[in-house]
Amino acid sequence: MRTVIIGSGNVATHLALALSDKCDVVQIFSHGIRNASLLANKISSDCLATNSAEKLIDADTYIVSIKDDAICPFLKKIPDSKKNALWVHTSGSIPQDVFDKSFPQNGVLYPLQTFSKNVDIKMDEVSFFVEGSDKEVSEKIYNLAKMMSQHIYYADSELRKKLHIAAVFACNFTNYMYSLANDLLKKDNIPFSVLIPLIKETTRKVTVTAPDSAQTGPAYRGDTEIIKHHTSMLNSQEKEIYELLSNAIFKRYNK
Amino acid sequence: MRTVIIGSGNVATHLALALSDKCDVVQIFSHGIRNASLLANKISSDCLATNSAEKLIDADTYIVSIKDDAICPFLKKIPDSKKNALWVHTSGSIPQDVFDKSFPQNGVLYPLQTFSKNVDIKMDEVSFFVEGSDKEVSEKIYNLAKMMSQHIYYADSELRKKLHIAAVFACNFTNYMYSLANDLLKKDNIPFSVLIPLIKETTRKVTVTAPDSAQTGPAYRGDTEIIKHHTSMLNSQEKEIYELLSNAIFKRYNK
Repeated sequence: MRTVIIGSGNVATHLALALSDKCDVVQIFSHGIRNASLLANKISSDCLATNSAEKLIDADTYIVSIKDDAICPFLKKIPDSKKNALWVHTSGSIPQDVFDKSFPQNGVLYPLQTFSKNVDIKMDEVSFFVEGSDKEVSEKIYNLAKMMSQHIYYADSELRKKLHIAAVFACNFTNYMYSLANDLLKKDNIPFSVLIPLIKETTRKVTVTAPDSAQTGPAYRGDTEIIKHHTSMLNSQEKEIYELLSNAIFKRYNK
Repeated sequence: MRTVIIGSGNVATHLALALSDKCDVVQIFSHGIRNASLLANKISSDCLATNSAEKLIDADTYIVSIKDDAICPFLKKIPDSKKNALWVHTSGSIPQDVFDKSFPQNGVLYPLQTFSKNVDIKMDEVSFFVEGSDKEVSEKIYNLAKMMSQHIYYADSELRKKLHIAAVFACNFTNYMYSLANDLLKKDNIPFSVLIPLIKETTRKVTVTAPDSAQTGPAYRGDTEIIKHHTSMLNSQEKEIYELLSNAIFKRYNK
């Protein structure tokens, strides 16, 4: 199966690498030709690179893995001769019908995961949520996902959007909390690694109990003196976040 | 070594259980006598329970593991006859000098970990930060901690306070993000378990790279349309948090 990857970011990179073991990744498109070439070279010496939609080559499947707000403008540039192939995007929040009727076989292949270019990932442990323009297309996308992982689910655009928001809280905002913790430790040259056992345990707990049962800390206990004292040690941005989250936690558990 | 545990909450429970393998936990104090008895019964049939500071029995070590703002008032009630023993508290944010000079051997034994009563913990993987009123006392507390874990560090009250704030961000606020994600999924009867691979990977990434290099998501990419769309789907509390954190992430990475 000839596959073209549109994009050279975190998701595109990991999908291209994972699929290159299973099928023929023949071309990488990226607005920056250098990034397209870098990724193409990682795939194989036969993999082409382009930054022009006009120069997309024939393939069975095109996987669009670019910034959400770039998807619609990009699709407008696709030559009609390429539209009969299977087209999928990988976004959590862009509906399937971003593809108009000129793409007869289209859908979504959404990996519910956080990808960073330089961090390896076990793709076979990633959950994929798929949606197709019809039943047959859904199955095609399911089988495409199945090449990479055993954890494949169907989800329509509404459900996928909700999964994406939940993922923003559980992953993106969580990682930002780690950055803020790191900022605080850095000022005293304390390595971030002292927090790793705590972070691992925080994660492990929600694999064995609901997050509500795992909540601990000053706001949960209603230790207002400590909260006041902590905020007095923070800069204005950190303080605003600390206060908003502490108030919300306090309200949730001390009704 | 005869040890009395003051408290019956999450930290007190796990410390009492971990220490009962290594030394003689002879009494549990708790303001609620029922909680004191419940924990004492878990320790051994010889372990006593009390809710009166007057009825504390003789021991070598007293470990005060109660709400931060209850520590100082509690210490005021201790009979002089008990003050010559080793007294430690387990709080991240209460200074060592909460013990006045009437306690000649005092200090802190701070476990940098999240404890929930009904979730088992590997105490030997917990990092402990210790501080004593003098060098000899510090060593005593170090040895006490060493009975439970190999990861013991010295930290004065200032440093411990900073570790505690970092822990609030890395653990308490993170867990709250999981609760918010769970709220969103529950509305559509999606089990929290779909997020577990994502949560595990978010954690794993910060063991191999700095949190700043691990950041992903709409705010990081500057996908303002998606952010607007997501917030339109949230209730007012969720929206306030989503917006504050997204703005902060955007500012951090898109200067």
